[in-house]
Formats: sequence, structure tokens, C-alpha cells
Amino acid sequence: MATPATILDGAALARSIRADVAAKIKSIQAAHPKFQPQLTIVQAGKRQDSSTYVRMKAKAADEVGITFKHVHLPTEATVEDVIKVVYELNENDDVSGILVQLPLGDHVGPEGEHLVTEAVSPQKDVDGFHPYNVGHLASRAADPLFIPCTAAAVMHILDSTNIPLAGAHAVVLGRSDIVGNPVAYLLKSRDATVTQCHSRSRNVEELVKIADIVVSAVGKPEFVKGSWLKPGAVVIDVGINFVPDSTKKSGQRLAGDVEFSTASAVASKITPVPGGVGPLTVAMLMANTLQSAERLWNKTHKSW
Amino acid sequence: MATPATILDGAALARSIRADVAAKIKSIQAAHPKFQPQLTIVQAGKRQDSSTYVRMKAKAADEVGITFKHVHLPTEATVEDVIKVVYELNENDDVSGILVQLPLGDHVGPEGEHLVTEAVSPQKDVDGFHPYNVGHLASRAADPLFIPCTAAAVMHILDSTNIPLAGAHAVVLGRSDIVGNPVAYLLKSRDATVTQCHSRSRNVEELVKIADIVVSAVGKPEFVKGSWLKPGAVVIDVGINFVPDSTKKSGQRLAGDVEFSTASAVASKITPVPGGVGPLTVAMLMANTLQSAERLWNKTHKSW
Repeated sequence: MATPATILDGAALARSIRADVAAKIKSIQAAHPKFQPQLTIVQAGKRQDSSTYVRMKAKAADEVGITFKHVHLPTEATVEDVIKVVYELNENDDVSGILVQLPLGDHVGPEGEHLVTEAVSPQKDVDGFHPYNVGHLASRAADPLFIPCTAAAVMHILDSTNIPLAGAHAVVLGRSDIVGNPVAYLLKSRDATVTQCHSRSRNVEELVKIADIVVSAVGKPEFVKGSWLKPGAVVIDVGINFVPDSTKKSGQRLAGDVEFSTASAVASKITPVPGGVGPLTVAMLMANTLQSAERLWNKTHKSW
Repeated sequence: MATPATILDGAALARSIRADVAAKIKSIQAAHPKFQPQLTIVQAGKRQDSSTYVRMKAKAADEVGITFKHVHLPTEATVEDVIKVVYELNENDDVSGILVQLPLGDHVGPEGEHLVTEAVSPQKDVDGFHPYNVGHLASRAADPLFIPCTAAAVMHILDSTNIPLAGAHAVVLGRSDIVGNPVAYLLKSRDATVTQCHSRSRNVEELVKIADIVVSAVGKPEFVKGSWLKPGAVVIDVGINFVPDSTKKSGQRLAGDVEFSTASAVASKITPVPGGVGPLTVAMLMANTLQSAERLWNKTHKSW
């Protein structure tokens, strides 16, 4: 009889990171009272999901002692409007981190969003999405100024399990710039053998079967079944999917990419959804903002 | 009895690319006599291998009608010296492509070489090594201004075979920034499922066994054996290794990463060493330089 998997508690890890960030800020401020990390989010329009994310980030910033600013532009804001704001923030020494909440309005499109992403100074790119930072992440040394928050969250959870990454075979499902790609690059830089699968892959099940570590970020509810897993595999589920559920008042429930009931009987460790990767992502944004504030402070205060 | 593999003739493909580049330059010049691509290589010191590479590139440039300039600095050139030259070339409208021949002197080191690489304008980075271009290559869209030449050569050979990349399982051996990483990212962007192995990987043989496409860039002579391959696999050998051979006047012979004698009996298509990827790399540099010249010309000549 297999032992049920250890459930990896992302919320607890997130609390610990937030506490660390808060303590570090206080300790630096004790010596340097003017040290004050600041995160500015630029949002255009009033998409409900975007506003929810912005609120979550504001709350976390407040909790750890990071000043939070919200530049709220109208839905009609053009690419030029957003870039103008970003340039001002790049030049503003009070700002440690800049995050443009995507998507922007429909009139902006992916091309415009790329322009905006590239307008953010790589030095303040706490999302880690600027091509300069992506290039460093994807290189042999994998040493960017910032690691994208969700990918950093995945790596932090894996590290919390103490499983050796070097030589392990990791199968990453998904190739998004937010999760799949950076996770694959980070695992490779930590000496894992990495197989990356995506919507056009064949034999995904056979490949997952040989993985010591499975990271899924494909956005397909309960796609990965317990029967696909090698016994003892470590499973990180980045999926956030809403599926119809008539037993819920809202008519839907949250499901990951992994069929938890069957997977947790085969895996050795597994993240739940919700309560796994999700809570850690915002905590990682706080860590990135602190890291940026320290780096910028060191640049301007030689007597640090 | 297995049919022996088709041997993929990199030299012939290289001739064809050089001819295409030469014809395109002539055709543009017929309409725009002032159009003149120019490649400048910055070299410091007199390493024999570097000088050989520079000569090969000069010869290819001459053959296709690209102006070739060689900025030859003394071995002692500092990072600042090299960067000063690079900045001048960035600003010089006659220069379409800039390539800093690595390695620089021992006193420069990897950190200094990174600074030099990042000093090259991404717009003239015909090597494709600037983090900005690497970041675009490693992103979902995989659309950099320049693709690193050896990786472009590998993709060109694969395309010449007409084997479908989408859904194929490609195993890439190696994770260098020059070959392994960009090839893995390009194959992924072409919808292959990609497994990347390296010196810390376990079970390399078992992973190679399930690959439809094997690209090896590890620098270990005759590392991949025919018995490792799935029958019918396509094998691209990027290795250039010198091994002792008392029957040769030089006392050594050139060997790839793949044991050709056994692999060619199992693979459906295979590149030889020499005569496979090698000759194509320089041809790709010419194609990158032409592409850059066209892009820069289009920017300054609106009536194009």
C-alpha cells in the first residue's frame, strides 16, 4: 500500500518568506532609516481579475513594509501613455520595482504589451519579464537580475522538499513565458535533466512516467492523472482552473492541472490547488522588490 | 538489414546559402547601389584558433560580397579598450554586423567577456549572443533579431531533411549558450518536445533511445553510440573533437560527438564530422549580416 503524498503547504512557505522580507527591511532600516522599498503597479482599466491581483499585491506589500503605489490609467490608455508612465518610474529613485499589470486594453494587443514590457528598466523589472532578464535566465549561468515570481515560487517549493535537483529528470508541462519556460531554464541551471512538453507534444503520459519531478502549467483541469506518475515523484501543480460544480454556491470550483485524488496516492510530495504555488507567487514579488531596493541602494550609497 | 543513413551534406547546404546571400546582395545593389553590408570582427591578441576563424569568416564575406573589416587589438587590450571600439562600431552606420572574437585575453575573463557581449548593439549582434536577443530567442515567440549561427545551422540542416519537427521528440545533448541552449529553444518554438541533457544527466542513453531527433554538442569524441539510437532517428553532430591517431601525419584526427560508424547504420539521416554543421555556421553568419544590413537600410531609407 502506497503512503499518501506529503502535501506541500505553499501558504506556510509564503508566510515564512513574507516574515523574512519584513524582518530584513526592518533590520536594514535600523541602520539606514531612509531605506524604503517601493513597488509601483501600473494598471489600465478595471478588469476584475486584474484589480483582484493588484489588491493582493498591495496587501502583501503593506504587510511586509513595502510602500505600494498604484498608477491607475483609464482603459483607453495607449501604449505611448503607459510607456510614458513607465519611463517616469524608471527615473524615479523612490521606486524599487515596477510592474505593469497585464493584459492592457484590447486595443493594445500582444505587440504593444511587448513594447511596454521592454520599456521597464531591467533594473526595476520585478516581474522578470524584460528580454534582458529572460536572456540571462535562459543562459548557461541563469543569473538574471530578477526571476519571474511564479517560477521562483516553484523552485522555492522544490527546494523546501530537499530533493536533489542535480541529475533528476524533470518534466515541465507548458512553455509560457510566465511559468513553463522560466521553470525549465531554472531546473536546467540547477543540473536537472529537463523535458519540456506542450500542446503539440505526443506521448506526454509516457514522458511524465519517467519523471522524478513533474511541474504542470498547462491550464487543463485534472489533466495529469495519478496513473501517469512514477511512484514517489514530486508534483508541482501550477494550474489554476475553474470547473463547473453544481454543489458549490458559485457553481464552480478551483482545480489544478493534476488530478489530486489519484496523484496524491502515487506521488511522494505534491502541491494542492489552492494553497500550493499560488500564495507563494505574491510573496516572491515582495522578495524581488526588496532585492531590487537593496541593489539600487547599494549603487547610490557607497558607504553601505 | 538496415539501410545506411543518408549523409547530410553541410558543405553543399553552405554553398547554397552563400550563393543565395551573394545573389540577394547583388539584386538589392542593382536597385540601391549604395547598399553594402559590412561585417566587422574585433579580435584581441593572436590566438591561432581565433585567427583561423577570423580568416574563414573574411573569406566567406569576400565570396558573397560583404565588406569585411578586422579590428585587431593587442593581447593586452582591456575590457574598456574593447568596449570603446564596440561603441564606435555601434554608432558607425557603415557597419551592419559586429562580432567580438572570443576568447579575449586571459586577463579579461568570463565577466569581462559578458560586459563586451552586452556592449554590442542588439541591432548589430550578428552572433546572437546579447542577452536581449537570447531573451527573445528563449521566449514563447522565439523571435530574436539574430539567431546564433551554429544553432541556425542545425535548424537549417534539420529543415533540409523535411522531417516534421512539430510533435517530434528531440534530445539535445549540451547546454552551452552557443549551441545546446539556443537549439533547444528553437526546437521548442518549432513545436518539438525537447529533452535537454548535460554533464550531470543520468540515463542519457535511455533518453537518446526515445528521440526522433538527436542533436549532440557536448565535445566528447564518439560519445553517442549507434546502439543508443532509435532506428530511423535523425542525428545532428555538432561536436568537433581532436583525437590521437598515429596513422595521420598530424598525429590526430577530427571526430564528432557521435560514433559515426555505428550510428550511421541505425539513423535515417546523419551529419558527418567534418562536413556537417561546421561549414554551415560561417554561411549563417553571412546570412545574419545581410539580414542586419537590410534591416538597418530599411530604417534609414523610407522609400525602400
